[in-house]
Amino acid sequence: MSQNELIQKLVSELLNQRTPTEPHVCCKDGICTDGLCVIHNKQGVQNIVESGASRVTASVGVDAAGGVTPDIAKMIDHTLLKPEATVEQINTLCSEAKKFNFASVCVNPSYVTLCAHLLKDTNVRVCTVIGFPLGATTTETKAFETEHVIRNGATEVDMVINVGRLKSKEYAVVENDIFAVVSQAKRHNVLTKVIIETGLLTDEEKVIACMLAKRAGADFVKTSTGFSKGGATAADIALMRYVVGSSMGVKASGGVRTREDALAMVASGADRIGASASVSIASGTAASGGGY
Amino acid sequence: MSQNELIQKLVSELLNQRTPTEPHVCCKDGICTDGLCVIHNKQGVQNIVESGASRVTASVGVDAAGGVTPDIAKMIDHTLLKPEATVEQINTLCSEAKKFNFASVCVNPSYVTLCAHLLKDTNVRVCTVIGFPLGATTTETKAFETEHVIRNGATEVDMVINVGRLKSKEYAVVENDIFAVVSQAKRHNVLTKVIIETGLLTDEEKVIACMLAKRAGADFVKTSTGFSKGGATAADIALMRYVVGSSMGVKASGGVRTREDALAMVASGADRIGASASVSIASGTAASGGGY
Repeated sequence: MSQNELIQKLVSELLNQRTPTEPHVCCKDGICTDGLCVIHNKQGVQNIVESGASRVTASVGVDAAGGVTPDIAKMIDHTLLKPEATVEQINTLCSEAKKFNFASVCVNPSYVTLCAHLLKDTNVRVCTVIGFPLGATTTETKAFETEHVIRNGATEVDMVINVGRLKSKEYAVVENDIFAVVSQAKRHNVLTKVIIETGLLTDEEKVIACMLAKRAGADFVKTSTGFSKGGATAADIALMRYVVGSSMGVKASGGVRTREDALAMVASGADRIGASASVSIASGTAASGGGY
Repeated sequence: MSQNELIQKLVSELLNQRTPTEPHVCCKDGICTDGLCVIHNKQGVQNIVESGASRVTASVGVDAAGGVTPDIAKMIDHTLLKPEATVEQINTLCSEAKKFNFASVCVNPSYVTLCAHLLKDTNVRVCTVIGFPLGATTTETKAFETEHVIRNGATEVDMVINVGRLKSKEYAVVENDIFAVVSQAKRHNVLTKVIIETGLLTDEEKVIACMLAKRAGADFVKTSTGFSKGGATAADIALMRYVVGSSMGVKASGGVRTREDALAMVASGADRIGASASVSIASGTAASGGGY
């Protein structure tokens, strides 16, 4: 059996074992519709716990008995990846991240040096992106970029897989591409998150991508760049958590704009949230919408 | 006077000299509305020639007497930059490029080696993209990527400027970023096109970006990545041509889907067209729409 055949077989078995369902969250426009809400309904949370307990309890700070709001701020990568983001806006991003004690700021490589300077002597980490957002540059360039941003002060890197090669079933190429980034990062104790861009993938491809990320030694899998179709769905988070198990992190990103969105992701197994509406999520005010 | 003040002064003078007007093309939904059409109306072309003759005659194959359709195919970069593009689709792209004798194929760096192999012993060039599509990676990474894709067989590179630094008025940073790519490319006789992403810029910023690209020694300026807001407009092409003069090329890209779109760009001074609907443009059939 070739490696590709083996991967296909494993994927079939995984998908047969369990079909991910829609998110177990009841609040639609503020109204409980099906009694499965982490905020308002203990039984709802209990159901979520029963359908995938480790996803909730592993690392998210949700009380399994339900009703306790997690400290979402500590799970958030405060994100500004728009190409037109100015130095002034990056300054604001870093100030907010310090104020709310977010996990990190997530910025383009060009701003890593600035953020590392602004956030020195704080607990806020500097996260940047590799091969972003298309994931279609060469493996050598991704490896170089990783080494370079780490030298500039990045302590977490979010790399995009080569989606085209995945769809072409060139799994060894995709894995090697991830590994090239991970191995650079590990040398410096830097976290690697692997963006699989769920909006472009079939469920089968999502499973394969997560398996390849896990084999390559990455620390997290992450749903989306925010620059393509779709964004994080709770069903994707649950599927990704199921594939990678409890030893890897799962990051929800793209389209996470409200506290309810964030809680839905957490309930489904996410332990890191990427959001540009971070301030409103953490403070519970309405999200300003838009942006990445 | 500081360098930034000097640039602002030059920009003001340029913008005062001439405000770009809407494209001089009459066909709207197939109907001549104002008699300025390169296809149907010799006088229209004559007017275009008179308002900026060099823009039409410099390199586009349009007969200045009007009415002669340019050989658009030779000006087209046949483009497939979607992250999910497969090996099979790249094969098709290259076959089409050979058949219609397009100027180049434009693909992501990951596919340069494949295209160089498929197009060897043809006149079709291999174009790829640098720091694409956000332009927000580091200068060092752009330089490395340029050197690496050239080694893999690229003969033209389309690089994206650092838009955020332009908007932060860090002009020296932007120019140095372009120069790092241009200098790598020139060592290997490789063409450089500088994507200024017009959809994100004010007119003043468009002018500055073109001036910086010219100072850095680039061969072309190019409107858009196709991954951001807006795309090529004839007014932008005319403005860019006006700023760079006749010694540089101007490439229209993004939203060029029909033969009429392409002709409008050409009439305004474009001498290279980036389009994923290239086959329908060259053969005169309806564009299939979508894609990059």
